[in-house]
Amino acid sequence: MDVQTYMHGVGRAARAASRLIAKADTATKNKALLLMAQAVERTSKQLMAANAVDVDAAREQKLDAAAIDRLTLTRTNIAAMVDGLLQIAKLPDPVGEILNMRYRPSGIQVGQMRVPLGVVGIIYESRPNVTADAASLCLKSGNAAILRGGSEALHSNQAIAACVHEGLKATGLPETVVQVIDTIDRAAVGELVTMQEYVDVIVPRGGKGLIERLMRESRIPMIKHLHGVCHVYIDDKADFDKALRIADNAKTQRLGTCNTMETLLIARSIAERVLPPLCRIYVNKGIELRGDEAARAIVPEMKAATDEDWYTEYLDAILSVRIVDNIDQAIEHIAAYGSQHTDAIVTEDITRARQFMREVDSSSVMVNASTRFADGYEYGLGAEIGISTDKLHARGPVGLEGLTSLKWVVIGDGHVRQ
Amino acid sequence: MDVQTYMHGVGRAARAASRLIAKADTATKNKALLLMAQAVERTSKQLMAANAVDVDAAREQKLDAAAIDRLTLTRTNIAAMVDGLLQIAKLPDPVGEILNMRYRPSGIQVGQMRVPLGVVGIIYESRPNVTADAASLCLKSGNAAILRGGSEALHSNQAIAACVHEGLKATGLPETVVQVIDTIDRAAVGELVTMQEYVDVIVPRGGKGLIERLMRESRIPMIKHLHGVCHVYIDDKADFDKALRIADNAKTQRLGTCNTMETLLIARSIAERVLPPLCRIYVNKGIELRGDEAARAIVPEMKAATDEDWYTEYLDAILSVRIVDNIDQAIEHIAAYGSQHTDAIVTEDITRARQFMREVDSSSVMVNASTRFADGYEYGLGAEIGISTDKLHARGPVGLEGLTSLKWVVIGDGHVRQ
Repeated sequence: MDVQTYMHGVGRAARAASRLIAKADTATKNKALLLMAQAVERTSKQLMAANAVDVDAAREQKLDAAAIDRLTLTRTNIAAMVDGLLQIAKLPDPVGEILNMRYRPSGIQVGQMRVPLGVVGIIYESRPNVTADAASLCLKSGNAAILRGGSEALHSNQAIAACVHEGLKATGLPETVVQVIDTIDRAAVGELVTMQEYVDVIVPRGGKGLIERLMRESRIPMIKHLHGVCHVYIDDKADFDKALRIADNAKTQRLGTCNTMETLLIARSIAERVLPPLCRIYVNKGIELRGDEAARAIVPEMKAATDEDWYTEYLDAILSVRIVDNIDQAIEHIAAYGSQHTDAIVTEDITRARQFMREVDSSSVMVNASTRFADGYEYGLGAEIGISTDKLHARGPVGLEGLTSLKWVVIGDGHVRQ
Repeated sequence: MDVQTYMHGVGRAARAASRLIAKADTATKNKALLLMAQAVERTSKQLMAANAVDVDAAREQKLDAAAIDRLTLTRTNIAAMVDGLLQIAKLPDPVGEILNMRYRPSGIQVGQMRVPLGVVGIIYESRPNVTADAASLCLKSGNAAILRGGSEALHSNQAIAACVHEGLKATGLPETVVQVIDTIDRAAVGELVTMQEYVDVIVPRGGKGLIERLMRESRIPMIKHLHGVCHVYIDDKADFDKALRIADNAKTQRLGTCNTMETLLIARSIAERVLPPLCRIYVNKGIELRGDEAARAIVPEMKAATDEDWYTEYLDAILSVRIVDNIDQAIEHIAAYGSQHTDAIVTEDITRARQFMREVDSSSVMVNASTRFADGYEYGLGAEIGISTDKLHARGPVGLEGLTSLKWVVIGDGHVRQ
């Protein structure tokens, strides 16, 4: 069977399954999730054995240490997977919720009902635990899922898929509610992102290369972010201790995440006070600093930043630093170089805070908090399928609600239009 | 200047203007709307003179009567335009509204702030009053607008644009907040729907031909519906009088609107009772009926419906009629042939009503009310920029909220991630 025929078969089956999972009741979906968690726990040895096959092959293919680390399933990963499934079972069912039901002057009642999107295609790279996370979020939100993991994680993903299918089967739900693509042919991705008749939304999770490729190829709307060039702006009315704490945490708590700060902006009038102690913190933690001329006048050890630096998501132990005249220039810098992901201001001044919140056009805007908080779990979504920097449909961390839509419901008693 | 250079200039100006209108305060936006309304009222003679130029040209080009009717600005149209501007001024400003602000266990406060989408491109056909409607909805929701009306309405649209610009200018807002394309070159549309860097969303308003063309060409998300094949299902537990009233109104109150019923579904066990009196109503109003075999067995004068009929949006005095076994078959029919626009059930049974509301996957689902209610004004949105049958972002009638997005706002007091 060629890839196109295979993928269209998967698409058709997903579309049919989506109608059944959309009307599945809450108890059935939760039971399926509990059974999946039990299956993952019970078969954890088999999961680790399947994963070992992938890891061995990855070693043979000389994948780098970070990639192998992402690929490896540990006892901790598996426990987190089980925990994730149980948590999603506990979250309220978003499907069928009716919002804003009101009587209109005509006498009809009008409201909006939350409904699933239909079929969600998820394309991800090495981490096999995404298989369980994505499957459970789609299931709970009443969607059918088509999962395409990295080819290097094929055995691990198939083993996790078996647990997912066990839960579906035992509750009488069709196994086609969650389908895991079992070909490593890259053409499968090309088919997935162009099957408009079968797939309602694509969620790509992976590096910039993957996302850029999909942005060119996809004919289906995506929930995505390309990169996270996050900023912290230390205003001249900032509290000194909070500024240090936040600028430190936003950069150094974890280096490789999309909500990590990549550029620090400091108001000119307090730069001499704030920059030297901050630099000591960074240098002690092994962070390389790249500054503009004004920053280097204060801390001459800093390398010079180029224009390219302001655009760069390092995902590494590097930070660019710029001195700005004021909040307006900080907002201008973020608009010009940022990626609309997450940006924070440190200030004690409420007018500045109001201005920053209103005018910075990013998916998360923060006042006196570390950019590292931009995360579905921290925001109370329970879990996230991804983070979106787009404006249409879902923005920022996307949980169950982002996998739903609102349809209008109208109830009358024989009402007709005059 | 070639079309591409012209359109990219328009796009750049719109992007710059979008940042200014996004932060404009509510009073300024409302004042601009009031001044626009005054300008339309004051210059109504000039508007009608400009419109006469378009109408004369359209007559010379032998446009059909319906097209000329849509193009013509009457005193009533102009009064409606003025009224629309005033109404939008009175609606609450959606921009900056913060929803669901809650404390999280970490101590941060997390909420969602409503923000404009940015730049909205609107492509429409003959009706010149769309110029004022679309401009005012975009302005109030803090978006910059690029309007491309039908070439046959060019003079009318320019005259209305002058009123819009008068209001912007007098309140100190840049005139580039609303730009009306002044070339009739169709290549301008091709540019508009592919300038991803300058345009955030396209709202096409027009016939199926226009929408289909844009679906092929656009690289920008659209808020749209292709067509409205709306159904009324008369359940066997329907109230007889309500069934007649709703089935009559949904078809005959207006023939040419997207929320007009095109197919009537009737439960087999009450068809003999309901269909004959309904047919008399329809025939008296000049509606041609096309039925399936079972319907024709009851009313033999009916023409035979083909499979094609079930897919057809007549927008005309034609109705297709099908007898179904039960609610499940009605829902199946709507899923197979419908356009996910608006579908209604007539029933006194709450279990049937619940099932229909949950399982019919349309942008508006109604119980005991005419499909003709599917409209932004009837739903309480104040006005609508269009109706969407898509699931992502906005579904059903789209008002000010559909022209906004939600960004996350986080407020802490020096909080960092553990």
